[in-house]
Amino acid sequence: MAEQSPITPRAKDFPEWYQDVIRAGDLAEPAIVVKGAMVIKPNGYAIWEKIQRELDDRIKATGHRNAYFPMFIPESFLKKEAEHVEGFSPELAVVTIGGGKELEERYVVRPTSETIIGHFFAKWIQSHRDLPMLINQWANIVRWELRTRMFLRTSEFLWQEGHTAHATHEESLKEVLRMLDVYADFAENVMAMPVIRGEKTASEKFAGGVKSYCIEGLMQNGWALQAGTSHDLGQNFGKAFDVKFQNMAGQSEYVWQTSWGVSTRLIGGLVMTHSDDAGLVCPPKLAPYHVVVIPIFKNDAERAATEEVGRRMVEDLKGKGLSVVFDNRDERPGAKYFEWERKGACARIEIGPKDLEKKSFAFKRRDLEKKEFVPMEKGVDHVVAQMEAMQKDLFNKAKKFRDESTRRIDTWDAFKAQMDGAGGFASCHWCGDGACEGQVKEDTKVTIRCIPLGNAKEAGKCVRCGRESGERVLFARAY
Amino acid sequence: MAEQSPITPRAKDFPEWYQDVIRAGDLAEPAIVVKGAMVIKPNGYAIWEKIQRELDDRIKATGHRNAYFPMFIPESFLKKEAEHVEGFSPELAVVTIGGGKELEERYVVRPTSETIIGHFFAKWIQSHRDLPMLINQWANIVRWELRTRMFLRTSEFLWQEGHTAHATHEESLKEVLRMLDVYADFAENVMAMPVIRGEKTASEKFAGGVKSYCIEGLMQNGWALQAGTSHDLGQNFGKAFDVKFQNMAGQSEYVWQTSWGVSTRLIGGLVMTHSDDAGLVCPPKLAPYHVVVIPIFKNDAERAATEEVGRRMVEDLKGKGLSVVFDNRDERPGAKYFEWERKGACARIEIGPKDLEKKSFAFKRRDLEKKEFVPMEKGVDHVVAQMEAMQKDLFNKAKKFRDESTRRIDTWDAFKAQMDGAGGFASCHWCGDGACEGQVKEDTKVTIRCIPLGNAKEAGKCVRCGRESGERVLFARAY
Repeated sequence: MAEQSPITPRAKDFPEWYQDVIRAGDLAEPAIVVKGAMVIKPNGYAIWEKIQRELDDRIKATGHRNAYFPMFIPESFLKKEAEHVEGFSPELAVVTIGGGKELEERYVVRPTSETIIGHFFAKWIQSHRDLPMLINQWANIVRWELRTRMFLRTSEFLWQEGHTAHATHEESLKEVLRMLDVYADFAENVMAMPVIRGEKTASEKFAGGVKSYCIEGLMQNGWALQAGTSHDLGQNFGKAFDVKFQNMAGQSEYVWQTSWGVSTRLIGGLVMTHSDDAGLVCPPKLAPYHVVVIPIFKNDAERAATEEVGRRMVEDLKGKGLSVVFDNRDERPGAKYFEWERKGACARIEIGPKDLEKKSFAFKRRDLEKKEFVPMEKGVDHVVAQMEAMQKDLFNKAKKFRDESTRRIDTWDAFKAQMDGAGGFASCHWCGDGACEGQVKEDTKVTIRCIPLGNAKEAGKCVRCGRESGERVLFARAY
Repeated sequence: MAEQSPITPRAKDFPEWYQDVIRAGDLAEPAIVVKGAMVIKPNGYAIWEKIQRELDDRIKATGHRNAYFPMFIPESFLKKEAEHVEGFSPELAVVTIGGGKELEERYVVRPTSETIIGHFFAKWIQSHRDLPMLINQWANIVRWELRTRMFLRTSEFLWQEGHTAHATHEESLKEVLRMLDVYADFAENVMAMPVIRGEKTASEKFAGGVKSYCIEGLMQNGWALQAGTSHDLGQNFGKAFDVKFQNMAGQSEYVWQTSWGVSTRLIGGLVMTHSDDAGLVCPPKLAPYHVVVIPIFKNDAERAATEEVGRRMVEDLKGKGLSVVFDNRDERPGAKYFEWERKGACARIEIGPKDLEKKSFAFKRRDLEKKEFVPMEKGVDHVVAQMEAMQKDLFNKAKKFRDESTRRIDTWDAFKAQMDGAGGFASCHWCGDGACEGQVKEDTKVTIRCIPLGNAKEAGKCVRCGRESGERVLFARAY
């Protein structure tokens, strides 16, 4: 096995730790030769494939169908929605040459697809009978970012983007919140990452939309991560691209649109929610490897005996739908344990000559300290049950951390002290003024992550300026 | 339902027919605003998703893992392999601006990924223990083509590209042929499209490779379609990107590489292999819709009765894993039949009041003329069996056509007459000279599709120049 450089502890340097976990888990690496881009290696891509499968099932179950639109968008399209072009212009990659010739109209590589899809919706939608139109796309996206971090912010990334058109604002808003719920359900029940659903302030909303909603997770360093967004686009793109339909009364109206997306950034969130100083920890529903079976032997006879039982166990576990690796390489067991911990295998099984005598095996879950000895006959059921338990335990652990890291803070001094220290979510009153919000960001780099849905109404004073406030909002440092 | 313009008959204008089937089946449309690009609509994308699922399973079962590499490739990378850059230069889209600034090094949008993957292989491969490296990527590709046709040739398309590295040429060649077999198996057993496996002549091989292999199908107009390729890259890219490994003897060697791919072009092949003048015909393994259940009624009582039985049948069929639509819209049954024929539903079930009395239903398979009446109690089993039968029948029908359209031709006059007429595969002697091959192409637009694998050795005279030949090759007009 290749030698491995150590993983920086979280407490020492969280950003270094993050990169080390990704390297040690063989998830990805920076492309370097392509600015801000990354290579998603097989271990990382396996997680993305599981994310895709789970999300795609949910997106289809809510009535959407997948389609594929051109990646190149005529530059003029972006200019049709004033706020949209202003928001995305600084981040565009532009194709100016095609087939050896300077192009007459330049193309931008999609930074998001509202404009090109708006163009086609205008062709496809004539009548209220064509509505709702419920489309989703899995695609690569390019945004020329200055500061990049693997998975969290890269110049090219993979995502899904839902785009829908409806006859009424009531209906489109229902869609926006329904997909936000789909994302929250996915984050919590598949990624084991607790999230807050909320509304973005005006300064943080999608460029060109009316209102944006989000799910926000809390990473182990006390920073928040926006893990998914769902946008109420109102009639803005309908007007920009002339997407009209004839309503039941025979009148022509602009459609009401939504868009919503999650990306490979989720893998960054997964890493920062669960992993530890030994490397990747992955909830079983997304793990590339569930169980590694390791025979322990000192001679050929022991090898033959432990491998025979090990192979049988591998087959039995595969039969339960688990992803299982049989690691009988000629290496020290300790080196193997170390490697599979880094790669985020959910559990390992050790089978040595003594285990054979006792008709049991050693079982070590990645997220627990202690090793158990399990009777062979109960082995498969035990492993399956432990995978379910691990999924729940990871969520509960992350939720406990998130809850303990969420504080009601009412003074500016306490706010600054908390945000300079352990961070976390600060639930504070805010006056509602974007200028005040901007001042907080300038002073502390802290932003309003969201106004939580179903927030309790409560009178108070803005944590920064002291003006009247009717409810608390969530502040945090964020990726 | 929207009014539908008619489908041009195949005999009248095959290219028009092809476009009409795609439009009527709602599979795709030309993007127009993006040169040479297309939008893959939900019905078309559903076919692509099934292709992906089936192929991905086979690619994984042969030991490959998926990964994702940057879409942008430094322009200098292409120049490292002289033949490669010469082959692809005319087709490149170039990004010259990023984040509002002129780029120092321009990027091309990948026309294929040998170069960028070669760069990373050089970082990842040190020792023979790192081999074989077996990677696959699902991605979008851009080639600036002058003449485009939906699915068959578009400026942007979707594909999978396998890239592997091996310690010996023997091993890499085995991989090339193994993946060619995977493609042939997929084409015949999933797409129901018979194919010939063969070797490309030097003039038709991949730019930068040593030898290319292909599968070739025959479309209903007598033109061939290259449906998949598998390339022996030798050590060409290994040398260009310095991909070396230490062999078991401790010496440094260049790796032997392969690449292989199939694309959304397969959907074009599917359309042209099976569809007819009424629209799309799709083999059950790839069909977006297996069965449409249509209740027939003249009044509310009949509606209630037929719908009840219809809905039960829908649930039963879904329980068998079939994709089923219940079409109880207020439209004439004839209009519904017409629509679902165009959309390529494999079968329809009609349930009217008389059928209820007789405890049977009417069953019409898309590819057969006659309607059957099936006892209700045997209904589900019958439908399932008919789906299997249809899959086989479509293949046999296409194979019969292909076999009858493959002719041994020994004179230039007969060759020209055949190729000016019904086309098909012409199995002819060829002298082996690229200049002679080029002359045939110039005179008749006919190319050598392949030298079939396992070809019988047979002495003869070149169909064009009369020189000596040791075997026959397959000529055809091709997409």
